[in-house]
Amino acid sequence: MIKQTEKWDYFEVVLKSEINGNPFIDIDLEANFTYQNRSLKVNGFYDGDNTFKLRFMPDTIGKWQYETRSNVDALNGIRGELECIAPSNDNHGPVRVIDSYHFAYEDGTPYHPVGTTCYVWNHQGDELEKKTIETLKDAPFNKMRMCVFPKRYRLNLNEPPLYPFEGEIKREYDESLIDSHNIEPPLDFWDLDRFNPQYFQKLEKHILDLQALGIEADLIIFHPYDFGAWGFDHLPAEVNDRYLKYLTARISAFRNVWWSFANEFDFMRHLDMSVWDHYFKVVQENDPYHHLRSIHNGHVFYDHTKPWVTHCSIQSGDFYKMPEWLLHYKKPVVVDECGYEGDIERAWGSLSAEAMVECFWLGFACGGYVGHGETYWNEEEILWWSKGGQLIGDSPARIAFLREIIEDVPQPGLSPFLPREERQTVMPDGAYKGMACGHKGEDYYFLYLARNQPRFRRFNLPEGSTYKIDIIDTWNMTIDRFADDAKGMVNVELPRKNYLAVRVVRN
Amino acid sequence: MIKQTEKWDYFEVVLKSEINGNPFIDIDLEANFTYQNRSLKVNGFYDGDNTFKLRFMPDTIGKWQYETRSNVDALNGIRGELECIAPSNDNHGPVRVIDSYHFAYEDGTPYHPVGTTCYVWNHQGDELEKKTIETLKDAPFNKMRMCVFPKRYRLNLNEPPLYPFEGEIKREYDESLIDSHNIEPPLDFWDLDRFNPQYFQKLEKHILDLQALGIEADLIIFHPYDFGAWGFDHLPAEVNDRYLKYLTARISAFRNVWWSFANEFDFMRHLDMSVWDHYFKVVQENDPYHHLRSIHNGHVFYDHTKPWVTHCSIQSGDFYKMPEWLLHYKKPVVVDECGYEGDIERAWGSLSAEAMVECFWLGFACGGYVGHGETYWNEEEILWWSKGGQLIGDSPARIAFLREIIEDVPQPGLSPFLPREERQTVMPDGAYKGMACGHKGEDYYFLYLARNQPRFRRFNLPEGSTYKIDIIDTWNMTIDRFADDAKGMVNVELPRKNYLAVRVVRN
Repeated sequence: MIKQTEKWDYFEVVLKSEINGNPFIDIDLEANFTYQNRSLKVNGFYDGDNTFKLRFMPDTIGKWQYETRSNVDALNGIRGELECIAPSNDNHGPVRVIDSYHFAYEDGTPYHPVGTTCYVWNHQGDELEKKTIETLKDAPFNKMRMCVFPKRYRLNLNEPPLYPFEGEIKREYDESLIDSHNIEPPLDFWDLDRFNPQYFQKLEKHILDLQALGIEADLIIFHPYDFGAWGFDHLPAEVNDRYLKYLTARISAFRNVWWSFANEFDFMRHLDMSVWDHYFKVVQENDPYHHLRSIHNGHVFYDHTKPWVTHCSIQSGDFYKMPEWLLHYKKPVVVDECGYEGDIERAWGSLSAEAMVECFWLGFACGGYVGHGETYWNEEEILWWSKGGQLIGDSPARIAFLREIIEDVPQPGLSPFLPREERQTVMPDGAYKGMACGHKGEDYYFLYLARNQPRFRRFNLPEGSTYKIDIIDTWNMTIDRFADDAKGMVNVELPRKNYLAVRVVRN
Repeated sequence: MIKQTEKWDYFEVVLKSEINGNPFIDIDLEANFTYQNRSLKVNGFYDGDNTFKLRFMPDTIGKWQYETRSNVDALNGIRGELECIAPSNDNHGPVRVIDSYHFAYEDGTPYHPVGTTCYVWNHQGDELEKKTIETLKDAPFNKMRMCVFPKRYRLNLNEPPLYPFEGEIKREYDESLIDSHNIEPPLDFWDLDRFNPQYFQKLEKHILDLQALGIEADLIIFHPYDFGAWGFDHLPAEVNDRYLKYLTARISAFRNVWWSFANEFDFMRHLDMSVWDHYFKVVQENDPYHHLRSIHNGHVFYDHTKPWVTHCSIQSGDFYKMPEWLLHYKKPVVVDECGYEGDIERAWGSLSAEAMVECFWLGFACGGYVGHGETYWNEEEILWWSKGGQLIGDSPARIAFLREIIEDVPQPGLSPFLPREERQTVMPDGAYKGMACGHKGEDYYFLYLARNQPRFRRFNLPEGSTYKIDIIDTWNMTIDRFADDAKGMVNVELPRKNYLAVRVVRN
């Protein structure tokens, strides 16, 4: 019987063969997957235990044929077929950019990123990893920022259960090295010619766990938080290239993968911009499905206008720049890091819940997206931002409330008012210095007031339509109907409260 | 008997003479005031009613001689003397810049500007003007931003009781012109060759009323809020020069005068930068006492590095730039406009009290200064920000609390931590993204947390001293002693609250 695979699920070809040489380096394996006159080239990979695999994500319903090519006879010229069938209800395909500034799943279902960050939840051992998944079931998040490599940092002193290369740790870590940038990387611990397949199998399980929850895995490929612990931030150039090919061969077929080339790329000072450009291109060439690609900044922005960047992943707390970023980059903007709700000593890790929630609304109101993190300290040093576990903050409930409101916006989502004159027409009283506003054509207007408390705001609504107007208390999570059939120039009277928003929806 | 004048008070020479021609234009009058071998040139002015005056502010105790020069015989060669005596208790002289970033009165008494704004309180008629003065008696402010010319704007539709030139209003004002920039100025209403002395006499009374309350008059010489009401923003170049000479001749001798060349200078689009430079120079040449000189921006900053600018008067809400401004301009920074506590529909006029107070603390903590304004609407359209009257907001009490804390800082005041490494030494946990910090050498450290809520903050205090540490709730106005004799590395534990600050003072 022909094997059936859901559209956007993955089909796997498993080939067993004892081979001579290093299967990670000496063996070439790829396959063409063909539907009628269209063909996709898929790279194979070695998965340990004399096993080679090819994974394929079909995007068209019907019969696909494949045929392998290899420099090893036993793996060469193997043919087969699969039948791609209709996707199940929760399978909407990979997320794509639509309409310049927004996202949707490939089947057209709206997708508005409401992300969180648990950088290395996937390196904490089964018990805690399970707890994280349990927490995510009830959380409002549909995107997870997470690292492929383990992380060494304050509050992150534990070794991961597995390592990405064969080899072993040979000394106690000297904690004082954290934040130091001139460290001889301990690369002699590892056989850099041999990946550890179990490490990547575990990563795959985590990506699929997230997929089952409807969460996109915003996978951080490189990061600077190593500080001489393992040296994975200082791998030789050819090892990085091999790693990118291996990673894409293994996981490109998972529909919920996003490629984030780095967290704080510019903190990896030994890598210059052309190196990052090159990594983008390597992944672009080896991911046949063109998953989303971005890179997250420390102090310096990557030039997100470069054509291989699909969307902007930004670290900043300066949300008043959101319209400027959108206009300049002409791509969706996700502020993946604006600080975290929590109580650790660092400024970035001690936002009050009010400040964290304000970031979400400021970003959303201008047509962008924002990411969450939580850093409440505990004796076990299990902080959500890094290790996952439990959420105890006050922002997730408010973010859930915001997500409902985002998902009510007419597709594809809000745009900032550009130019300013356009905004003035509808909101004659301006919106800057602490306010944020956006719209969807003449169908929907949104104004977030942050800590501004006007007695009223005027809306000069377009002729010929009536509008519903709601006053939203974003902190207390209430929605009060101000008018059902507003038209023309309307004075929306407001209570004296912080963190209000006004929503205007065409009937 | 020789006339006695307090140091930094003003001495007046009054000369009566019927003259031919236009006394504002045709008559030159000046005097040299001489103490021993030092001489200051003072301009005279026509004060109406066949009266010419010369005003002089002596800055040295002892006998001064003067002698007039004029192109009119009756005013020429008049000699006299005065005795400058010790100043009374509340007279500390004019405010000067000290130590690059701060201010003090000329006698060395500390002066930290805690300003407010009532742009045209002085054009509202006796009753309301008296009420404003009454309010100021109990308010925490020691600087008042106010305009020489009347203001036409939303909520400012009343005519002033007097006009600066002879002439009269000849039509009803068309309110729809407000915010319009292409208006034929109605300058034909006025005889621009003749000032109205009563207008300036009233201004002088107001300046002296403020002086009696210990309030500096930060006098706005030009502003764009005219919109065809009177045309005072579009005076011919030679009239502006004459106005500057007349104004400086009249009021330079008042010790509490500051020259603010404009509010939102760049909104006067018909004047280019060289014109503003010229105005600075005219005042610099005609004010023998060198009162403080600044200029306030709309969207574009004036280049405050120019040598005739004594301090930066800034409109911005971006307080995280404060250290950058200080470093770049190497002058005191006063954020005279960051928005106003109030409830009007405009973003700039609807800050919550929390947001207004936060601005003050953010600015202060980095070594800068901040100005207040209040815009709560009322039926009479008497809003403090423009007309004065009453204060009803919640920020003034908190600003009074802040002022006490500012005045407790060792002289001359706080400096930002520059470079960053210097800060890290004492505050190893950083302070950015919503925090602000400053210090006075090793004597005093200050950290404002805004809406950050760390469980604790570390201070790595310099060897050899002990410090008092206070936790300040800037909103509830409480000061809790955390430690009396802290030394070395200290963990300051903090409650989970918004708007806290930590003060560390050497014993």
